[in-house]
Amino acid sequence: MELLCLYDFLPSGNGYKIRLLLTQLGMPFERVELNILKGETRTPEFLSKNPNGKIPLIEIESGKYLAESNAILVYLSEGTEFLPYDRFLRAQVLQWLCFEQYSHEPFIATSRFWISILGKAEEYSEAIKQKREPGYAALSLMEKHLTSHSFFVGERYTIADIALFAYTHVADEGGFDLTQFPAIQNWIERVKAQPRYISITQA
Amino acid sequence: MELLCLYDFLPSGNGYKIRLLLTQLGMPFERVELNILKGETRTPEFLSKNPNGKIPLIEIESGKYLAESNAILVYLSEGTEFLPYDRFLRAQVLQWLCFEQYSHEPFIATSRFWISILGKAEEYSEAIKQKREPGYAALSLMEKHLTSHSFFVGERYTIADIALFAYTHVADEGGFDLTQFPAIQNWIERVKAQPRYISITQA
Repeated sequence: MELLCLYDFLPSGNGYKIRLLLTQLGMPFERVELNILKGETRTPEFLSKNPNGKIPLIEIESGKYLAESNAILVYLSEGTEFLPYDRFLRAQVLQWLCFEQYSHEPFIATSRFWISILGKAEEYSEAIKQKREPGYAALSLMEKHLTSHSFFVGERYTIADIALFAYTHVADEGGFDLTQFPAIQNWIERVKAQPRYISITQA
Repeated sequence: MELLCLYDFLPSGNGYKIRLLLTQLGMPFERVELNILKGETRTPEFLSKNPNGKIPLIEIESGKYLAESNAILVYLSEGTEFLPYDRFLRAQVLQWLCFEQYSHEPFIATSRFWISILGKAEEYSEAIKQKREPGYAALSLMEKHLTSHSFFVGERYTIADIALFAYTHVADEGGFDLTQFPAIQNWIERVKAQPRYISITQA
């Protein structure tokens, strides 16, 4: 059988979500590194694979592509311990995935991108400032939830944790101070203690 | 049995997604209108239901809440004709839902909100200007897809169409010109021709 292929960019939290899940599933995969800073996801060749020009993208079999990190997480985790079978719990996982993409990633991941990936904190200072309040609002909501829960859904580790972990555990690289969020810090340790955990810098 | 309850705001496209699907499913529901412009989703009472302070929110049974429009769409459509059973097609539906929340709604819906809901086009003119390019990029990507497809996934009407229709068909209220997108316009007509279609202003 052909290996699943992941189009990826190592510093990307969205790519890391998929790398982490595939590794924890014990599913071997091929990885194609594309440097988004050099426009490698904007070439005609890559756009024919993903018209939205973004990683992560998986090629499930020859010519069969799936984009959007959280859609890929759901696809890969169906039928595994990482996605609950119960309909309402599964819906809660989706709810947190939507929260991550809409209320978390656009503030926390973009700040990290400008500051730590591009290294242009000065140039983007105004934009970074605008991301502070909504970014901290997302972290506060997570903190509140984690004060009375070990994980985001069903008291066990699921793709909701993977999705939220990806950019939260490196939020400091976007200038967010996590020391004021003890429940998040404890949850980060619980995620890092999961079997087959790999760090964001591991291919 | 208790009726499902939808916490809603009539001008909201995100609320409309749920109203439209419930109506097309023939599922009776109760609707609670909350005026987001008057802070009615920021009261302690509502925040105890949805800590993120947003509509739509459904109460499935007493005290059992689900937030995030696209998570609600998936929850309600499981096992129905509006969500494919095939694993890859279902993943493609999720891919378009993620696209809508990340690459479409933040530009097209927010422009409509400032211009047509708040009526403050002048005050927000700089922010609106910044939303133009990414908003048109989302519409162009949709146009390209619809040039060779009748619907977004599997050549049939699914919740991917509902999610993308909600803010696309009123994109002009956000200052986006749809006349340059004939495939989108034809798709809008196909959606409007679906059984039990209701318009965005219908409760």
